[in-house]
Amino acid sequence: MERADKDLAFMLQYENVAWFDGGQVRILDRRVYPARTEFVTCRTHKEVAQAITDMVTQSAGPFTAAPMGMALAAWECRDLGEEAQRAFLADAANTIANARPTTAKRMRALCDECLLAADAALKSGSDVPQAIVNRTIEMNNERYGLIDRIAHFLVEKFPQGGTVMTFCFAETIVGMMLRECRRTGKEIKLFCPETRPYFQGARLTATVCYDMGFDVTVISDNMPAFVMKNEGVDIFTTAADAICLDGHVVNKIGTFQTAIVAKHFGVPYYVTGAPDFAHPTVDTVKIEMRDPEFVLQAMGVRIAAEGVKGYYPSFDITPPELVTGVATPEGIFSPFELDKYVAATDGKYRVVV
Amino acid sequence: MERADKDLAFMLQYENVAWFDGGQVRILDRRVYPARTEFVTCRTHKEVAQAITDMVTQSAGPFTAAPMGMALAAWECRDLGEEAQRAFLADAANTIANARPTTAKRMRALCDECLLAADAALKSGSDVPQAIVNRTIEMNNERYGLIDRIAHFLVEKFPQGGTVMTFCFAETIVGMMLRECRRTGKEIKLFCPETRPYFQGARLTATVCYDMGFDVTVISDNMPAFVMKNEGVDIFTTAADAICLDGHVVNKIGTFQTAIVAKHFGVPYYVTGAPDFAHPTVDTVKIEMRDPEFVLQAMGVRIAAEGVKGYYPSFDITPPELVTGVATPEGIFSPFELDKYVAATDGKYRVVV
Repeated sequence: MERADKDLAFMLQYENVAWFDGGQVRILDRRVYPARTEFVTCRTHKEVAQAITDMVTQSAGPFTAAPMGMALAAWECRDLGEEAQRAFLADAANTIANARPTTAKRMRALCDECLLAADAALKSGSDVPQAIVNRTIEMNNERYGLIDRIAHFLVEKFPQGGTVMTFCFAETIVGMMLRECRRTGKEIKLFCPETRPYFQGARLTATVCYDMGFDVTVISDNMPAFVMKNEGVDIFTTAADAICLDGHVVNKIGTFQTAIVAKHFGVPYYVTGAPDFAHPTVDTVKIEMRDPEFVLQAMGVRIAAEGVKGYYPSFDITPPELVTGVATPEGIFSPFELDKYVAATDGKYRVVV
Repeated sequence: MERADKDLAFMLQYENVAWFDGGQVRILDRRVYPARTEFVTCRTHKEVAQAITDMVTQSAGPFTAAPMGMALAAWECRDLGEEAQRAFLADAANTIANARPTTAKRMRALCDECLLAADAALKSGSDVPQAIVNRTIEMNNERYGLIDRIAHFLVEKFPQGGTVMTFCFAETIVGMMLRECRRTGKEIKLFCPETRPYFQGARLTATVCYDMGFDVTVISDNMPAFVMKNEGVDIFTTAADAICLDGHVVNKIGTFQTAIVAKHFGVPYYVTGAPDFAHPTVDTVKIEMRDPEFVLQAMGVRIAAEGVKGYYPSFDITPPELVTGVATPEGIFSPFELDKYVAATDGKYRVVV
């Protein structure tokens, strides 16, 4: 995979955790990272789908894991006849795309691209798994280029010496954002809410920030209001699992609450990403309810008595009234005017961001 | 100690964890409860003060632990001359009252009552430790009576079949509140945010609710907005470490944030307790900043990489604009009209609530 420079390579070690290599996909287990660096090795596409369901990889990780799972499916069925391979791959695409409900449409689009690549390879008699790997690399490179443009527009909003709160941010965009800060000589410090119940903010986002040389402080999820009041936060920013074309933002549980608090203090909230053509409105969004028992433990230690119930919506929906701007590859748009983004893109970026 | 009925006794097992018994004070270690039921045994008043500092007991626990520590101090110095005993006890009162900055004034008032009891016992030649224990029992009984009245006024605000969110609630008031619900036939269900970093909400508040027979669900601290939007929360209520006479509420970190969110949804927020004559305004409140490293772990497991910083204000301040009403032993008052409460009490309750 092409790596533009040292910083980019550095970021990719966090995101690109899934590699197809002769019949297996190896995925960094982000449930235990950075305390331990361990990998889950998948030998079937169903194991890849299960790993995505089980949150082995999170944030942008599934967008590489899913097509790598398709390459693995192509490897699994390589000795079947052409039509049987097509049927096997179509089945695999369904399995992988539905591994996590909230991102199903985006995963579906990625898997469909893999099916097209497989179809072309089958027709030309070339290596199908390799064709899917090549398409994955193309899609990732396109994605990184777009995220770099998003980072450029976002960082223009940061004041020199400013304080940024960021919430369970996809490490690709946080890495690109910090690289852009360095490029442009913008010094910032960061506060990262820990993001229960998985602690991705504490474990992953904060690690990227620190490793890239920035001043980063982890807070628990009940502290954003205190920090905004007492520490002079200039900007709140997150990535999104989906930005609907009507301006609703689907992201990690807690985003909605922190956006309410930011609005209370007049702190602007910028969401980053390409608005999602698969969600013309919020009505097509299905919120993933996960195992409620998971909220009753922390890092594997039980925190509640037997009989107490849990509750675990993994995402929430932030309405456009709480969003200051959407940082896209085409610039920053009001969440109420994403039709202008649609017009500006003219059909670009439908698949890979 | 008098126990009014079975329910009350049941609650007291959570709160009254400190007992003076022939040279020692035993305190339930609430840092590990309910996973483990363990006690810290203190043999000097300094060990009691340290246990309070170290959060062995929390919520209302210190209001019994502190005077029991004074009884222990009286035991320690029992063989000294009368003036030396007075000096020793005055020193002990300083040590214990300052064990935790945020509640220092309230602890000071409790210790001062113990000094008065000791003074009377020394003058009359009676047993000093026993005199302090007796005064502690009186103060606790007065406190329970007042909390029972507070619970009465609070529960009147609950709709039948309603949903209550409660935040790291002192178990005495939550127990009294639930007993009042049972008395009056009011069925409610509860949502408890877990209250990081100590998880008191998950470990303690939720346990009391479940043990008293109520439907209780633990959520992580980033979920209150989602729950208020999707689960029909009728009332948000908390106790307070201090209710200033100008209507500012000092309570566990996260209260402020949840009050902002409640206001956003039009969910009323009722704080319970007797407004604190030691804090005529919020200007006398000192917020306790605790060891920032504590936020970087959960139940003893490290969650952040080395080099990442932590931040740990243990309390926050909710301004009166976000408080619907203050449930006191004299009824419910607007936070902007606590002068009416002052007039109604006419100097009662200065010490024990």
